[in-house]
Amino acid sequence: MIPFKLTDELLEQIQQLIADKKNADLRLMMKEFHYADIAEIAEELTKDEATYLIKLLDSEKTSDILAEMDEDLRESILKNLSAKEIAGELEELDTDDAADIVSELPKDIVQEVISEIEDKEHAKDIVDLLRYDEDTAGGLMAKELVKVKENWNVLTCVKEMRAQAENVTRVHSIYVVDDEDKLKGRLSLKDLLTTSTKTHIKDVYISKVDYVTVNEKSEEVAKIMSKYDLEAIPVVDEIGRLVGRITIDDIVDVIREEADKDYQLAAGITQDVEADDSIIELTRARLPWLFLGLIGGIGAFIIMEGFEKILAQGYAILFLFTPLIAAMAGNVGVQSSAIIVQGLANDDLKGSINKRLVKEMLLATLNGIVLAMFLLLFVWLWTKEPQLALAISISLVAVIIVAGLIGTFVPLFLDKRGIDPAIATGPFITTSNDIFGILIYFWIAKLVLGI
Amino acid sequence: MIPFKLTDELLEQIQQLIADKKNADLRLMMKEFHYADIAEIAEELTKDEATYLIKLLDSEKTSDILAEMDEDLRESILKNLSAKEIAGELEELDTDDAADIVSELPKDIVQEVISEIEDKEHAKDIVDLLRYDEDTAGGLMAKELVKVKENWNVLTCVKEMRAQAENVTRVHSIYVVDDEDKLKGRLSLKDLLTTSTKTHIKDVYISKVDYVTVNEKSEEVAKIMSKYDLEAIPVVDEIGRLVGRITIDDIVDVIREEADKDYQLAAGITQDVEADDSIIELTRARLPWLFLGLIGGIGAFIIMEGFEKILAQGYAILFLFTPLIAAMAGNVGVQSSAIIVQGLANDDLKGSINKRLVKEMLLATLNGIVLAMFLLLFVWLWTKEPQLALAISISLVAVIIVAGLIGTFVPLFLDKRGIDPAIATGPFITTSNDIFGILIYFWIAKLVLGI
Repeated sequence: MIPFKLTDELLEQIQQLIADKKNADLRLMMKEFHYADIAEIAEELTKDEATYLIKLLDSEKTSDILAEMDEDLRESILKNLSAKEIAGELEELDTDDAADIVSELPKDIVQEVISEIEDKEHAKDIVDLLRYDEDTAGGLMAKELVKVKENWNVLTCVKEMRAQAENVTRVHSIYVVDDEDKLKGRLSLKDLLTTSTKTHIKDVYISKVDYVTVNEKSEEVAKIMSKYDLEAIPVVDEIGRLVGRITIDDIVDVIREEADKDYQLAAGITQDVEADDSIIELTRARLPWLFLGLIGGIGAFIIMEGFEKILAQGYAILFLFTPLIAAMAGNVGVQSSAIIVQGLANDDLKGSINKRLVKEMLLATLNGIVLAMFLLLFVWLWTKEPQLALAISISLVAVIIVAGLIGTFVPLFLDKRGIDPAIATGPFITTSNDIFGILIYFWIAKLVLGI
Repeated sequence: MIPFKLTDELLEQIQQLIADKKNADLRLMMKEFHYADIAEIAEELTKDEATYLIKLLDSEKTSDILAEMDEDLRESILKNLSAKEIAGELEELDTDDAADIVSELPKDIVQEVISEIEDKEHAKDIVDLLRYDEDTAGGLMAKELVKVKENWNVLTCVKEMRAQAENVTRVHSIYVVDDEDKLKGRLSLKDLLTTSTKTHIKDVYISKVDYVTVNEKSEEVAKIMSKYDLEAIPVVDEIGRLVGRITIDDIVDVIREEADKDYQLAAGITQDVEADDSIIELTRARLPWLFLGLIGGIGAFIIMEGFEKILAQGYAILFLFTPLIAAMAGNVGVQSSAIIVQGLANDDLKGSINKRLVKEMLLATLNGIVLAMFLLLFVWLWTKEPQLALAISISLVAVIIVAGLIGTFVPLFLDKRGIDPAIATGPFITTSNDIFGILIYFWIAKLVLGI
């Protein structure tokens, strides 16, 4: 496959066609592109151009383009569409994507849009989905699925399935329910291919079926589906009735978003910004964390001022190592917290907090001693003052151990309290470790030097 | 679904059963568990216990357990199995998982193991897969797929499919090839359900089919599959012959690993360690980055010593702000590099490097001024020396701007040179920004203060 590549030339060509209103050429050109590629193109156009393009194409294609594109752009395009036009787009989409779009619409037009949807069953399904929190299984699931009753035979089943399959883009499993719609089991397409038509479903279905309830957290659903290699999972309500299904492509998005969020938090960026967002949006995401760092720096200043007497006593050189101490405390803290955050995210952490802390202490001691020996040698050779070199090196080991312990403890503590441990990595840990590090450094250095 | 939870009690109970050699009880108990759960259990057992458990169970189940478990544990279990036993496990696995295991075996037993595989076709497929690099489409793909010839009719097709489907866990698409095995298109199961049996395949298949070539990078395959919401993609060789297929569950693993790697690099951890790895392994992953930080700290020390005259001139207070300056330079650098790294990973970055740098400069200036005003106020009130406060604040703005530019430029530069930009975030950026930051800080402060 020659991968689609949005070149500057292609973009200019499309913009020219839009400017010249060459509708036939545009339609012809877009026909060749996948909706995901058109969404990519739309994101590079101005809002007016993108709206023009969407209005030009059929809702069969534009619905998927809209579902795929960036939320902000979608919102501003939908503002220029009538309730009837929006309803037309929703009609073409699976219920989960349609519900996502409806949930972003201004409150005052939702009812009108819904009432314009011709397929009343589809409209009802969308409305049903609106009441679930977007971070839950209910918020991820689609109503489209293939289900059969346990007392049907294979022939009825195939007939019913053909009808149902019309609305379902991908059939993964056929779910088996009882008369009250309660999930009983599943039937694979493969089984259906190899079973005689007279057989009753209740004699062939597999009763062991993984499922999640509507209120399960998205993250948890992602873990279950990727652990058990599932490509779709049925969703049941509180009393076990089959209400929807989640497919793996939605989970891929959940995993990506989760990873992006953790990465940004570790870098001190409040979630959900991209390089192409406005300066104001980026400032809003970045400034609070920088401010935290500033407060930490002021804290370090106040602590150092408390040790100012040392300056006059001829130990000014101690102050020249504070950036080194702060950097090491920060780096160690980020390393140990990152490992814990990742272990928590992947459910890899077994055993008690105490055992973790002991291990991190051993690890930090080992790393600390290696680094301190190097620093000892450097300071000794540079200053010709062995006692000073020893004082600084011993402090470094202590600082690294404390930094490692804080880095390990804080995310574990946050997690126990139900707070996302990912906020612990990055600026939060580096800032607190800067302060503790410098305090411990001066304290121990004074002790060793006897001043 | 009641999610499986490995409690300490359960673990103890299993260990007791193993110690008492209660084989029947163990078999009965394991029968209830999913192979992914047993793999989780095995990872908590000692190597001997895990080996005992694997030897006890049927290869139908153990093969999946082995494929699922941690590489290190698998290696040590396989050491205790005969070539014939290993061959038995491989026989049960899909070719992609089997090839992964074979590639980890000691070179001297590979041939013997392969020759013990009874299904010669399966053995040949595994050997075929061994020659692909594990980070490519060839390394991800499995040989199991359902393919039909374009000149068959639907009836032949269904008959052939039934035979082929026996070996294929999940049928996603039916691939259509010509007489030379070249990929022509695909047929969906849904289409097959709704087409008359006499129709010829060449009249119904969809010629538009996404595919990748064997040498495509895994990351690229992941991007394509998640962008186009594909659940499986066929793989062709250099001359277009269908040689395998990749399913979305393998891609989920690629995405997770990629995200984990970037996260660890940002935290200064060389890829591929977990919280439960040994202290030696963790040290090997963490120490080099800490060493880089140490060198940076020594660099900062040397720079500060160069400005030591200032100390004697009564400006000792400038030195007390160096941790603050270093922290701000580091934080800004990590933020801007993280946004660029993520943009590169998601293919979100459009436009020139210069435009990015200008934008980052504006952003850094805005953030810098807000933070500097706060610092100005603090230093002024604290020291009652407005000129000093001004000098420190102006330096801070300059430091933040330079830090932002370095953070933006370095990952873009690395990416252009074909180096993974993810190594730029974290210790690399913080260390270089510490040094530049402190240098700029003293230089500008001296200028403003006229010393």
